[in-house]
Amino acid sequence: MTTHSDDVAAVNETVATLLNRRSIRKFKADPIDDDTRAVLETVAQHAASSQYLNDWSAIRISDPSIKAKFAEIGHQPYIAEAPLLYLFILDEQRNARIAERKGVDTSSPDWGLASSYRFTQAQNDAVLALHAMETAAYSLGLGCVILGSLLNDIPELIKLCHLPKYTYPVLGLAIGKPDQEPALKPRMPRTMQFFENQYPAADDAASLDGLEEFDETVHQYYDLRNTDRPVDAFSDQIAKVSTQNVNDKSLLDKATAQGFHLEK
Amino acid sequence: MTTHSDDVAAVNETVATLLNRRSIRKFKADPIDDDTRAVLETVAQHAASSQYLNDWSAIRISDPSIKAKFAEIGHQPYIAEAPLLYLFILDEQRNARIAERKGVDTSSPDWGLASSYRFTQAQNDAVLALHAMETAAYSLGLGCVILGSLLNDIPELIKLCHLPKYTYPVLGLAIGKPDQEPALKPRMPRTMQFFENQYPAADDAASLDGLEEFDETVHQYYDLRNTDRPVDAFSDQIAKVSTQNVNDKSLLDKATAQGFHLEK
Repeated sequence: MTTHSDDVAAVNETVATLLNRRSIRKFKADPIDDDTRAVLETVAQHAASSQYLNDWSAIRISDPSIKAKFAEIGHQPYIAEAPLLYLFILDEQRNARIAERKGVDTSSPDWGLASSYRFTQAQNDAVLALHAMETAAYSLGLGCVILGSLLNDIPELIKLCHLPKYTYPVLGLAIGKPDQEPALKPRMPRTMQFFENQYPAADDAASLDGLEEFDETVHQYYDLRNTDRPVDAFSDQIAKVSTQNVNDKSLLDKATAQGFHLEK
Repeated sequence: MTTHSDDVAAVNETVATLLNRRSIRKFKADPIDDDTRAVLETVAQHAASSQYLNDWSAIRISDPSIKAKFAEIGHQPYIAEAPLLYLFILDEQRNARIAERKGVDTSSPDWGLASSYRFTQAQNDAVLALHAMETAAYSLGLGCVILGSLLNDIPELIKLCHLPKYTYPVLGLAIGKPDQEPALKPRMPRTMQFFENQYPAADDAASLDGLEEFDETVHQYYDLRNTDRPVDAFSDQIAKVSTQNVNDKSLLDKATAQGFHLEK
């Protein structure tokens, strides 16, 4: 089944792994051995890092009571059952400690690593590392789901994991042996997502060419999470999410409370 | 040469690709053919996407005059010579257009997709897609460098690529056949970056165990960008970056100007 506009060939093992990625939300109970975990964590460390600051960390959640709380925050029981569970965080706290040993006053409001630029770049670095780990896991026959849902309660995450000043949660990652085989999720036509030299003008109707067909493809997709009814068309999903209240996930106040200056 | 705390084995092609990743900043002039480009772009599309919103896009820069301007913004001449060059953006503009067709008032200050939560998640999605493309490129024998330096002048990027409301630049990616062989860059001990159940306490000196040795390893690293002197120790690099002025890269005002509400 081709679910994207380009029927590209899986020219090697890595490309095949990436093209066949699908989120896994049901895991076998088998634990992940320490050697595999070492591979996954070391691979994450080798992702690119902005200005070589290595400004992210990951907290492995092995304590069943914290796992259960994560599942509660994310409203997803399978989080508690993931054999391997990480919270990736952006982390300038380690760099603050290192800078302090070199005589830098990190409590100054002008400390560079608490700026919005570093906040966004550290966030990016955490995601690069997470995706490297995710890709390695799939190549080893494991499955993953990325957990944005943990951000439903950022203050509770901060409390549970004792996240200090100059750190901030980015995403969770659950890993285990897959105990389900979801279908590959459709993707929109490539021309809707890749542009040349500039973003399409507002009156350029061609930039949405293929949306109707994509809506129909999505509507036919069979979601293992909700097997009693067809998935909404893509446009309907967008309209629905548009009206969700997300104000308790607000960034500015929470990042400020963790010591970051998003206005700088 | 082992440059990380764990001498992990490259157990398959994908893991080897990820463990051997190094930024490539000099490319051969050979163009990248359309089939390869289709693979890279389709792989990017198959990365995970928060709430299935597919809220990122990428702009391929083929116009030599824009490439030259990107190189100027990033202060890096090799940007202009990259055979394949992308600007990844977070993109709720496409979803705004789709939602409007479904009757949603996207100009309301409460429109959910302009919230800070969506801003951060769309940023994450853009980075996941970028890293999928980067990994596929390496697996095909190409090399890449991620361009955070483009964010030196966000307003100019927005202008050059006609980025509309509800979009924001995330990172650039330059791709081509490598014309240099940089050494693998050292990584800190895994125990400095991976923690269990909670972030180490401020007085837990053990969490920086291995820093001195890592400082020394970094100091011996040979950087092709600057061959006339050894690289600073890691701690010295952190201290130096701490004092950089980054205020012209401030996020809050620029994201607000693009229609996002980071306080919501």
